[in-house]
Amino acid sequence: MNVNVNTTIDIDALWREYEDIKSRGYALDLTRGKPGKSQLDISMGMLDVVKSSADCISEVGDCRNYGVLDGIPEAKRLFSELLDIPAENILVAGNSSLNIMYDSIIRAMQFGVYGSVRPWGREKHVKFLCPVPGYDRHFAICESLGIEMIPVPMTDDGPDMDIVEELVGSDAEIKGIWCVPKYSNPSGITYSDEVVRRFAALEPKAPDFRIYWDNAYAVHDLYPDDKTELLNIFTEAKKLGRRNENMIMYYASTSKITFPGSGVAIMAASEDNLRRTKELMSVQTIGYDKINQIRHVKYFGNADGILRHMEEHAALLRPKFEIVCDTLERELGGLGIASWRRPKGGYFVSLDVLPGHAKKVYELCRYVGVKLTEAGATYPYHHDPEDKNLRIAPSFPENDDLQTAMDVLCLCVKLACLE
Amino acid sequence: MNVNVNTTIDIDALWREYEDIKSRGYALDLTRGKPGKSQLDISMGMLDVVKSSADCISEVGDCRNYGVLDGIPEAKRLFSELLDIPAENILVAGNSSLNIMYDSIIRAMQFGVYGSVRPWGREKHVKFLCPVPGYDRHFAICESLGIEMIPVPMTDDGPDMDIVEELVGSDAEIKGIWCVPKYSNPSGITYSDEVVRRFAALEPKAPDFRIYWDNAYAVHDLYPDDKTELLNIFTEAKKLGRRNENMIMYYASTSKITFPGSGVAIMAASEDNLRRTKELMSVQTIGYDKINQIRHVKYFGNADGILRHMEEHAALLRPKFEIVCDTLERELGGLGIASWRRPKGGYFVSLDVLPGHAKKVYELCRYVGVKLTEAGATYPYHHDPEDKNLRIAPSFPENDDLQTAMDVLCLCVKLACLE
Repeated sequence: MNVNVNTTIDIDALWREYEDIKSRGYALDLTRGKPGKSQLDISMGMLDVVKSSADCISEVGDCRNYGVLDGIPEAKRLFSELLDIPAENILVAGNSSLNIMYDSIIRAMQFGVYGSVRPWGREKHVKFLCPVPGYDRHFAICESLGIEMIPVPMTDDGPDMDIVEELVGSDAEIKGIWCVPKYSNPSGITYSDEVVRRFAALEPKAPDFRIYWDNAYAVHDLYPDDKTELLNIFTEAKKLGRRNENMIMYYASTSKITFPGSGVAIMAASEDNLRRTKELMSVQTIGYDKINQIRHVKYFGNADGILRHMEEHAALLRPKFEIVCDTLERELGGLGIASWRRPKGGYFVSLDVLPGHAKKVYELCRYVGVKLTEAGATYPYHHDPEDKNLRIAPSFPENDDLQTAMDVLCLCVKLACLE
Repeated sequence: MNVNVNTTIDIDALWREYEDIKSRGYALDLTRGKPGKSQLDISMGMLDVVKSSADCISEVGDCRNYGVLDGIPEAKRLFSELLDIPAENILVAGNSSLNIMYDSIIRAMQFGVYGSVRPWGREKHVKFLCPVPGYDRHFAICESLGIEMIPVPMTDDGPDMDIVEELVGSDAEIKGIWCVPKYSNPSGITYSDEVVRRFAALEPKAPDFRIYWDNAYAVHDLYPDDKTELLNIFTEAKKLGRRNENMIMYYASTSKITFPGSGVAIMAASEDNLRRTKELMSVQTIGYDKINQIRHVKYFGNADGILRHMEEHAALLRPKFEIVCDTLERELGGLGIASWRRPKGGYFVSLDVLPGHAKKVYELCRYVGVKLTEAGATYPYHHDPEDKNLRIAPSFPENDDLQTAMDVLCLCVKLACLE
């Protein structure tokens, strides 16, 4: 990016504006990818569909009682149709895909995965590849468990696969990689078909290498008529054989479809992986909340029901993403001090400012009451080596507040980068 | 127990009866402590109390969105009142107390508990005391994680505390003990005040020893006018100081109050333990299902609401426990081949037969279509050294089926023990 300030910008005027903003005492928040209130309201019908004992009856029995470790078949089929993964590869769990990802990895540490020679926790050293910028909560799991994180740069098509292939193919300590393959958090990038194929075809040095495929935004398109298609990694891996299929640990949830924290999460995996997971999981729990599973099944009926529902979310989210991107364009376009993409889905806009200035922007915003996700959060160990990336989460604030926050943010970018 | 067969029992006639039963092709199940259908029906109102967005508003915000790791304050207060534990010591979690117990212990393996010198998984050897007979799923957690289990005999007042004190006080490898202190699974015994006090006052050799206090049947009394009181271990431990309080990890749930698998579980612990738990748990999840938490709060209102609800459960469960105990008395009383207690609450009747004969009884029952929890299941490693204990779970079958199953069981006890 080339700084290009042949426009006449009056820095002193910008500082006066900043002082004026400070006096207004804002308390605005662009930090987390939480749906807004109006988005929550569109799912209220869900709380009304399971009322009688008859409503609670699944093919495999009464959802009101113990049992059925891996989820009711009706829910498996719903996600199977939605994600185009065979129902027998799906495990329907509780309220949080983060939780089942964490559980997958702590189990790997304690017991190893299918094909491990020993538990990961008994290896001398375990490493994960982390495409950057990425999701802070993925990185927190590795940091907490003492797994070394190696950043891999993102390209416009997904992680740089030359680097991924070389590292995974040569270092047996690399046991995993975190991926948000569609509308990636935070960049909004969707992995190209070629990237997905190269993932499915990886030839890792470690026999127990796993791809943690967090398809958090599988159906979270902003433009129903212009959806981005993600190639199905399961189908690709299956073509190549059992070992390839065994690399993939796939996660998704309804957190941003129905209610965050009260939705349903799934894991999809090969027969070998699922068998091992269920064997260990059966010691942890008798089963997840099946009433909530059947509630989701009854409310949506089928995958089309979910897709129609997602159009309502899109209608509420589009104006917010437009506020963010239009403001960035208007205020920072052509200045050469910032770059971003206009995402077609997901929950974030990733903003790169002049290297060395992200923290300063963060601080300037914070000082006048606009909270951004901390600079560095999108990198392992909170360390953005170029200090340039900021994550904007537009979904939660009301549109007016979002506009105000974006105006403040753009002002702060100018102040930080143009001085 | 002395075999005392001066009554004239015609063994051949019993075998003819057994053959007759075999021909009937029963499929009866006394294995698991699942509430019966009529018990589930009494909680149906719960599915109707949270319908509008206003219903979802907690003091700390909208239950429909992310956040609030340790549960909404309204739910903490409900359990605080019910269990007489300060709300600030309570963490309200998801649908399964087994799950949070497992998570507590796998975290201890990975990271240690508050006060650990190193993670338990980095110790040479870790042991747990296991009062026997006990809960098979507790034992499965230890077995899965490679924690050596040392059985401790139960007395009529709880675990033999002379043995517990001696072992815990002399062996630093002993890091924990499993307790079901009220209406113990399976014996139905409630720990006496003295036993609770001695637990609270333990002086373990290991600085990070923990008492896993699974108060699964805290309010699960069969006779509302003749409840058994369990002394509050928290109050006792607090009197003795912080180190004592830190020993206690307390669990409970509404699994057998509302819906098994769709209830709310809690953990209660000292400030030090909770802080450490939340710090590690914040990496695992953003939070548990708060809509289900507020659903429970609104349905019950307060602790009295729960206690009234438990009287309805008791009314449904009493006849079942009476069928079990009356049949045992009528068929086996005075024969000197079996002993049992008439529990005043909980979900099980523990039956001891002549040593060396429990497996045979189990097999005889199985062969004619009556499924018992496997002989040995109530002991670590499924090994009942005396081969005498059987667990009867009366709650799930309809009364007629239960009567039939008990008749068969008693016949099989006679056949196994009298031949």
